[in-house]
Amino acid sequence: MKIAIPQINYHIGDISKNRDLIIAAIKKAKAMKAELVLFPEHAICGAYPQDLFEKEYFVNECRISIEKIAEQCHNIAALVGGPNLDLEDGILMNAMFFMYDGEVRGGVNKTILSDYDVFDESRYFIPGESNTPLRYKNQNIRVIFDEYESNMIEKTDTIIVHVGSTPFTTESFAYRKESLSYIARKQKCPLISLNHVGANASLIFDGNSFVVNSKGISTYKLAAFKEDFMVIDTERLLNAPALKEKGPDTIALIHDALILGIKDFFHKNGFSKAVLGLSGGIDSALVAALATEALGKENVLGILMPSRFSTDHSVTDAVDLARNLGISHETLPIKEIYDNFIATLHPVFKDAPFNVAEENLQARIRGSLVMAISNKFGHILLNTSNKSEAAVGYGTLYGDLCGSLSVLGDVYKTDVYKLSRYMNRNGELIPENTITKAPSAELRPGQKDQDSLPDYDTLDAILKLYLEENSSKQEIIAKGFAPEIVEKTITLVNRNDYKRAQCPPILKVSKKAFGSGRRMPLVAKL
Amino acid sequence: MKIAIPQINYHIGDISKNRDLIIAAIKKAKAMKAELVLFPEHAICGAYPQDLFEKEYFVNECRISIEKIAEQCHNIAALVGGPNLDLEDGILMNAMFFMYDGEVRGGVNKTILSDYDVFDESRYFIPGESNTPLRYKNQNIRVIFDEYESNMIEKTDTIIVHVGSTPFTTESFAYRKESLSYIARKQKCPLISLNHVGANASLIFDGNSFVVNSKGISTYKLAAFKEDFMVIDTERLLNAPALKEKGPDTIALIHDALILGIKDFFHKNGFSKAVLGLSGGIDSALVAALATEALGKENVLGILMPSRFSTDHSVTDAVDLARNLGISHETLPIKEIYDNFIATLHPVFKDAPFNVAEENLQARIRGSLVMAISNKFGHILLNTSNKSEAAVGYGTLYGDLCGSLSVLGDVYKTDVYKLSRYMNRNGELIPENTITKAPSAELRPGQKDQDSLPDYDTLDAILKLYLEENSSKQEIIAKGFAPEIVEKTITLVNRNDYKRAQCPPILKVSKKAFGSGRRMPLVAKL
Repeated sequence: MKIAIPQINYHIGDISKNRDLIIAAIKKAKAMKAELVLFPEHAICGAYPQDLFEKEYFVNECRISIEKIAEQCHNIAALVGGPNLDLEDGILMNAMFFMYDGEVRGGVNKTILSDYDVFDESRYFIPGESNTPLRYKNQNIRVIFDEYESNMIEKTDTIIVHVGSTPFTTESFAYRKESLSYIARKQKCPLISLNHVGANASLIFDGNSFVVNSKGISTYKLAAFKEDFMVIDTERLLNAPALKEKGPDTIALIHDALILGIKDFFHKNGFSKAVLGLSGGIDSALVAALATEALGKENVLGILMPSRFSTDHSVTDAVDLARNLGISHETLPIKEIYDNFIATLHPVFKDAPFNVAEENLQARIRGSLVMAISNKFGHILLNTSNKSEAAVGYGTLYGDLCGSLSVLGDVYKTDVYKLSRYMNRNGELIPENTITKAPSAELRPGQKDQDSLPDYDTLDAILKLYLEENSSKQEIIAKGFAPEIVEKTITLVNRNDYKRAQCPPILKVSKKAFGSGRRMPLVAKL
Repeated sequence: MKIAIPQINYHIGDISKNRDLIIAAIKKAKAMKAELVLFPEHAICGAYPQDLFEKEYFVNECRISIEKIAEQCHNIAALVGGPNLDLEDGILMNAMFFMYDGEVRGGVNKTILSDYDVFDESRYFIPGESNTPLRYKNQNIRVIFDEYESNMIEKTDTIIVHVGSTPFTTESFAYRKESLSYIARKQKCPLISLNHVGANASLIFDGNSFVVNSKGISTYKLAAFKEDFMVIDTERLLNAPALKEKGPDTIALIHDALILGIKDFFHKNGFSKAVLGLSGGIDSALVAALATEALGKENVLGILMPSRFSTDHSVTDAVDLARNLGISHETLPIKEIYDNFIATLHPVFKDAPFNVAEENLQARIRGSLVMAISNKFGHILLNTSNKSEAAVGYGTLYGDLCGSLSVLGDVYKTDVYKLSRYMNRNGELIPENTITKAPSAELRPGQKDQDSLPDYDTLDAILKLYLEENSSKQEIIAKGFAPEIVEKTITLVNRNDYKRAQCPPILKVSKKAFGSGRRMPLVAKL
C-alpha cells in the first residue's frame, strides 16, 4: 500500500489552519497516488490544548473540522487525530478518526492514558475500552498511541501505525526508534511512527517520523526539526536499504531544538523582535547567539547595563559579542538609578550592612530597564538563566528571572559551555574570554559563582541524580559525592520551588524540566 | 461504637510531626474511651505532597510512620490515610490503613481517582480494584474517598466513613453536606465525613468534619477553619438533636478562609512578618487588614510609594488605613528614581510618546522597593491583585504582580468591596474614602480602571461564566451581555495566561482559581 506521511507544524487551537494544512496534505498525497495518508494524534488541535479540551465549543469545532476533512477523502483514506466526544454519555476520548469515501468510517480511541511528567490525559479523557485494527484495502492497520499499547497487536495485523506525539528530549528519538523497532521485529510487521514537528512554548516536537520494516530495520525517516512529506510503499519495505544514520550528538540536538523552540514561540505568538540583557557572561551570550540564528540579527537587541561592580571585560566582551553577531546594542549604566534607590530606601534601611537586598536591587533595575524597552517597542524579553542556576535558586526574581521565554532553563551550566563551543564551530560568535573566564553575577566586588556554589561539574551531576532520577540524598552520597555538598544542593533545590513557580516557560530538552513536569508543594517541610 | 474524630492541621512533608500529632490524638481518644479513631486521607503526609509521591524514600518514610502509629493502637482501632506502595509490583495507591492490636490489619485503596481542577491522582496512583468494608467489633465500616464511590456501599454496612480531603471553596461545605447526607439517608446508615483543616499555599482546608445519622440528619459538626476533637457514639445518633445551623454567608466564609490561608502560609514556612505596598486603593487596604488580623499588627509593614500621578487622597487614605490598623508604615516617593530611569532610557526611547512602558515602570520601581525591604529584613511580600484584574491582565508583571502569596487572586473585585465592608463591621478599618472612590491604578494623569475595563459588575459576571462555567462567547452573549464587551473580556483573559503563569500562588476560594486548576497552553490561537 502506498502511504503518505505528512509531517506538519500544527498550531494549538488554530483549528481552521490545521484543517487547511491537513486538507492540502491529503490533496498532495492523492496527487502522488497514495492510498492512505497518516496524521498524528491531536493533529486537528495541535499538541497539547490542555484545558481547551474542557470547553465544549472547542471540542465541537474540532469535530466539525474532522468532518470537513473527511469530505475531501475520495479515492484515498486518511487517519487524523483529535478529541472524540461521545454525545450519548458526554465522554471525551483521545481518538484517531479513520475516513474514506467522504465520511468518517471508524477510528481508534487511546486505551492507556498518559499521566506523567507534562501529561495530564486523565484530566480530559476516558480510556477507550478496546483497540481494534482498521480494515482497509485488505490490510489490518493497527493504530497504537504509544508502546504501552503494543500488547494489543495481533498476528493478523499487517501495518502498525504509532500516532503518539512525543515532546523532544535529548533521548526521545533514540528511545522511540529502539522501542518501536523492537515491536516491529517482534510482531514481524512494518511500523510507521508519526510525530509532530514544531514548538509550543515549553514543548518542542522534533519530527523524525520514521518507517521500520517487519525485520525492525529503519528504512525511511522524515526530517528532524522541520516539516516534511514522504510517500512510502509498504510492499517495498523489506527490500529498501537500511538507513545509514549516525545521529547528531547531544549538544547539536539541544541546539536544533532550542532554535526551533525560539522560532515557533515568536512566530506562533506573532512576535518578531527579541531583547535581552548582555552581561558579558556566557549565558546571555549563548542566548543572544541562539536568538540571532533563530530570528535574524536585525531582530535581536542587546542591552548592556553595567554597574559599579561590573568589570571592564564584562562590557568589552558584550560589545565583542554584539559585533560578532551583528546585532544592535545599547549601553544603559545603572549606577545613578541604583544610587537613587539606595537614597530612597535609606529611611528604612538606615545603616544596615550591604546584603542580598542590594545585590537583587541591581538585577531588578536591569529587569525594569529591559522590560521598559520591551513595553515601549514590543520586543520580547528572553530570559537567560540556565538549569543549574534555576535549580539552586541562583537568580533574582523580577530581576534576571524576568522574561517571556526561558531559553536555557533546561540546559545545565556544563552544557551551556559545550553549546557555546558548538555555536563557535564555524568561527567565533561568543568571545573566547566569555567562555574561559570564571562565571560571576558581578553583584558585589570580586563575586564569583563558585564562592556560593559547588563547581558546576559536581553540581550538575548531583542535580541530574536528584531531579531526573529521583535519587535520595543517601543514594547520591553513596555514589561518592561529599555529604555536605549533596545536603546543601538538595536544600537549595527544595527551597527554591517558590522562585521557579514565578519563572517564564522553559524550553524542555531533558526528561525532567522545571515547569509542569515538576509539581511541588510550596509549603512542604523537606 | 464510640468514635473519636480529631480534626488536625497537618503539614505537607513533615511526616514525623504528623505522626506525633496522630499518636497524641490516639492517646487522647483512648483516654476518652473511644473504640475507634478516624484520620482522613493523606493524614500522614499532608494534602497534597504532589511529586513527593514519586520519591521512593518519601513513600517509605510514610510507611514506617504508619507502622509506628499502629504500634500505639492497643484497645483502640485507628484509620489513617497515606500512600500505599505494593512492594511486589511497585504500584502506589491512595490508601487508608486500618490498625488495631499494635499492627496494620487491613485497609482500603481509593478506587476512582480524581483528575480534575487541582487534582492529579492518576499521575501518582493506580486505582484500587475493590472497596470492601472493614470489619471491627461487629461493625461493617465502609470507607469511601468521595461520593463517586458511594455505589460501592452495601446494605450490610453499618457505618460509612468519608475520608476525602476537600479543599475549600465557598460552596464546598454545603455541597459535601448535601451529597453525603443524601447518601446516608439513601443507605439508611450513619456517615462520618472527615476533613483536613489548615492551608498549604494555594489550597485551604476548612475542617467542618461532620456526622449524619441514618436518616441523613446532621447531628454533629467539628469547628470550621480550626483544629478540633470530638468523640461521638454511633448508637446515640438517632436520638441526637439535629444541628441548628445557619451557615455563615459567602463573604464571611471567604474572610475566614483567607485569614487561615495567610496564617498557615507564614507559619508553615517559618515566616512571621509581611510587607506590602499601600496605594490608598481598596485592594491593598483589604490585604493589609486581612494580614493584620492574621499575623498581628506588629508584623505588618505598609509602604507608601507615591508618584507624580498619585492623588493627595491616595496618601491620606493609606495613612488613615495604617493608623486604623495600627501597623507601621513608611513613605518612599518614587519620583526621583522614575526620572532617573527615564533619563537612563532616553538614548533608546528618544522622543517616543508616553505609553504603557512608563506606566509599568512606575509599578516595577515600587515592586523593586518593596522587594528590597523584603530581602533586607525578611518580610514576605504580599501580592494585592484581585481575580478580576488577574483575569484580564490588568497589572504589571514584576511590578504590582510581585509577591510570595496572592491573597485576593481568587476574589472578584465586586467581592473585594463586600469583603472590605465586612472588615469594617465592628468599626472602620478600611477608610470610607478608599471604598467609595473610583478605582484607579494612578499610572497616568486622571486614569480610572473603567477607562479600559467594563464596570466591575458586568466584568465579574462575564468572567464567572467564562472561567467557572466554561461558557462560550455565544452562550454569554445569549445571556444578554453586550457582544463587544464579551468579546473584549474573553480576548483579554486568553491573552494574559502568560502573565498569570508568572504570578504568585493564589489562595483558592472559588471552584476555579488561577493556578494549577487552570492549565492553558501559552501559544494557543484562541
